[in-house]
Amino acid sequence: MSIPQPLPDCDLLLTADLALTQDSGRRVLEKAAVAVRDGRIAALGSPDELAHLRPRERLDLGRALIMPGLINAHTHCPMTFFRGLADDMPLEEWLTRYIFPNEQRLTAEITEIGALIGCAEMTRFGCTAFADMYLFEDSVAAAADKSGLRVLLGEAIFSFATPASPGYEATHEKVRAQVLRYKDHSRLRVAVAMHSVYATGADALRASVGLAAELGLPLHIHLSETGREVRDCLEANGLRPLAYCRELGLVGPSTTFAHCVMLDEEELDELAASGAKVAHNPCSNMKLASGVAPVPAMLRRGILPGLGTDGAASNNSLNLFMEMRACALLHKVHSQDPMVCTAQEVLDMATLGGAAALGWPELGKLVPGGPADLIALDLTSPNHLPVHNPASLPAYSACGQEVRLCMVEGRILYKDGAYLALDYPSLIGEADKLARWARAKL
Amino acid sequence: MSIPQPLPDCDLLLTADLALTQDSGRRVLEKAAVAVRDGRIAALGSPDELAHLRPRERLDLGRALIMPGLINAHTHCPMTFFRGLADDMPLEEWLTRYIFPNEQRLTAEITEIGALIGCAEMTRFGCTAFADMYLFEDSVAAAADKSGLRVLLGEAIFSFATPASPGYEATHEKVRAQVLRYKDHSRLRVAVAMHSVYATGADALRASVGLAAELGLPLHIHLSETGREVRDCLEANGLRPLAYCRELGLVGPSTTFAHCVMLDEEELDELAASGAKVAHNPCSNMKLASGVAPVPAMLRRGILPGLGTDGAASNNSLNLFMEMRACALLHKVHSQDPMVCTAQEVLDMATLGGAAALGWPELGKLVPGGPADLIALDLTSPNHLPVHNPASLPAYSACGQEVRLCMVEGRILYKDGAYLALDYPSLIGEADKLARWARAKL
Repeated sequence: MSIPQPLPDCDLLLTADLALTQDSGRRVLEKAAVAVRDGRIAALGSPDELAHLRPRERLDLGRALIMPGLINAHTHCPMTFFRGLADDMPLEEWLTRYIFPNEQRLTAEITEIGALIGCAEMTRFGCTAFADMYLFEDSVAAAADKSGLRVLLGEAIFSFATPASPGYEATHEKVRAQVLRYKDHSRLRVAVAMHSVYATGADALRASVGLAAELGLPLHIHLSETGREVRDCLEANGLRPLAYCRELGLVGPSTTFAHCVMLDEEELDELAASGAKVAHNPCSNMKLASGVAPVPAMLRRGILPGLGTDGAASNNSLNLFMEMRACALLHKVHSQDPMVCTAQEVLDMATLGGAAALGWPELGKLVPGGPADLIALDLTSPNHLPVHNPASLPAYSACGQEVRLCMVEGRILYKDGAYLALDYPSLIGEADKLARWARAKL
Repeated sequence: MSIPQPLPDCDLLLTADLALTQDSGRRVLEKAAVAVRDGRIAALGSPDELAHLRPRERLDLGRALIMPGLINAHTHCPMTFFRGLADDMPLEEWLTRYIFPNEQRLTAEITEIGALIGCAEMTRFGCTAFADMYLFEDSVAAAADKSGLRVLLGEAIFSFATPASPGYEATHEKVRAQVLRYKDHSRLRVAVAMHSVYATGADALRASVGLAAELGLPLHIHLSETGREVRDCLEANGLRPLAYCRELGLVGPSTTFAHCVMLDEEELDELAASGAKVAHNPCSNMKLASGVAPVPAMLRRGILPGLGTDGAASNNSLNLFMEMRACALLHKVHSQDPMVCTAQEVLDMATLGGAAALGWPELGKLVPGGPADLIALDLTSPNHLPVHNPASLPAYSACGQEVRLCMVEGRILYKDGAYLALDYPSLIGEADKLARWARAKL
């Protein structure tokens, strides 16, 4: 006669030497345990505190740091196909000679391969959710679905025709269809993603704001990325880009503005008062020599930006550890103050700031009842020896490949060298196809 | 009766899909083969060209990129013990509250553990040679010897007493002893390393120049790192730091100046004319908010700086891939020109520039007859998909942990997760001892 076993009361009990919760108290746990049930964190504490649980499975990561998955607040995920294609050149030449001509030949299939590589990269580097803006977002949805990541889909709204849409009205119909198609998918959400004040006309912008209000969707748009954008907007509309957006009803708490490089003090005040969100892309702004966004001035006003990689064409990676480091280092030297953008602040940006930028506030932290979106970093890596300040590890010391585990909604997507959701080896072969496609017209 | 086998004519034949030689033509090899014999590159070419060789051993790395090992042109390797100890604070507070008090308690043993961690980190991140400056350099020599790296030892010359030396004359005696001790060691060389114009007095600087001339050693010194250093030097000596160094006989082709943040146009002209070398430390200069070294202006004058990480206390890693990326990105945004500091230029800095800064010109490139100091990067990593521009991979896309193989003088130090020279697992345990030591007086 067998003794009846108690039923498991969680799916997985994860343990590790250290955890950064990013909860409201920024609690750090030494000897940490995380219980995962039905894609959520059932409990969080010391291994002793969780010793009463009967997990279906146990995973002890040992000398590792558990933390929330990082959030990419602004990217063009499929653009991995242009990685390194045209480095070290001015924005105009880069766009007109390389990016735009190639994008004219874009297909849904190519977009999906590019997006799969982007998702594989984000997974590998500890990113669990991203805000995307590109063409053929159903391909990005397919890639995010296959790879297991969370995504805020942003079918790019232009006023002109693209290979994905003849015009903004047709793009709006795509957005409506996406909302219906993904309404029961827990990891896919839809945004109304206007490209910019220069590539999306006033009619299209006004109609997009209406669409977002009608469907209850967040708004996403590039804003004030370069001096030229500001000058052109002033010339065309008599207003700087933020004021122009205000006139069109675009400035409010459900809007995320990507870049915000060229905001002045008054605009920062307006931004803070409006509750709008910011996606800061330090590496892309540096590589394209766009300028330095006034992040310390945002922080002083209580704006916590999210961090974005932008596309791999202008980065050239989708690695948020690099963005944290670049953000902290850039603003210290630019403001001549080593105390701005601390390790904890850039960690907050890459987690909580990203969650705000995606309009998905339950992400970016490890709390009981919250989503089990987490990563674990190897603490045996020599650049993590010794440990003095846990927040300093991801912010300054890590390069990103110390990620040993990447989990979204309780599902392990990557662990110790292996992708568990994606068929990564065949994706490598697809990348060669992509390289040939991207160079076909050069 | 056995058929006599021909004797092997090289120790190892390495093959891989791609190689960056960094030779004078910056030759890129698709399907590359490198033959290694007696610590040197016996031959280099396509696998077909080298098919006649009979190697003792073959190693096919497949989808990987072979390139010269990176060179760290300026570091304080043992300072890993202060990694993350005191981030985000002004230089003065950082030095006087954390670094200096701790360094008063420094011992040769602690220095060696710190240096071993630093060497393990550099090995892991593809650095094969470094220029060091610290106290107890015999401990750094021991660590470099054990780890298999090349080093230019720089026992720091101060005018005041340190735990390692009562004064500069005693330090000079240490340098003499090091020259004798390491004269037959192919991987260890000795420099005369004065700390700076503010911590090393005129007598000590003058005597150090004499010592270097007498022993035929290169010179290494921090120069014009901060505005304060320049102001203080002007006040104390009526000269800016470079002019002051010139007066003392310090400016010439065998001197490497670390930092050079605050050089003006005239000083850059003088530097270029003198043939002196530069070690540029972008991440450390950014983190401490010291300023931006005029690197594009150096390049225009034909000065190719080496790249340095500085110590882990102000970085917080010893990862030259991060330095390449930071260098390219920082100077693009700072000079508002996306064309400065190209991928190829920062790759040149991290290899050939570093070799020049170490006064070791045969390093930093893969050429027949040259030292077999090389690394291989994983090209199956998602951030390396697809490949358009080979130089762009190490400069922009890599984070550093894509290094699969690190070889110095023909000896494999690291391969696919395992250290072959160091006992890395016991070093991890030593790091905990180091953490306790570093925090004992806080």
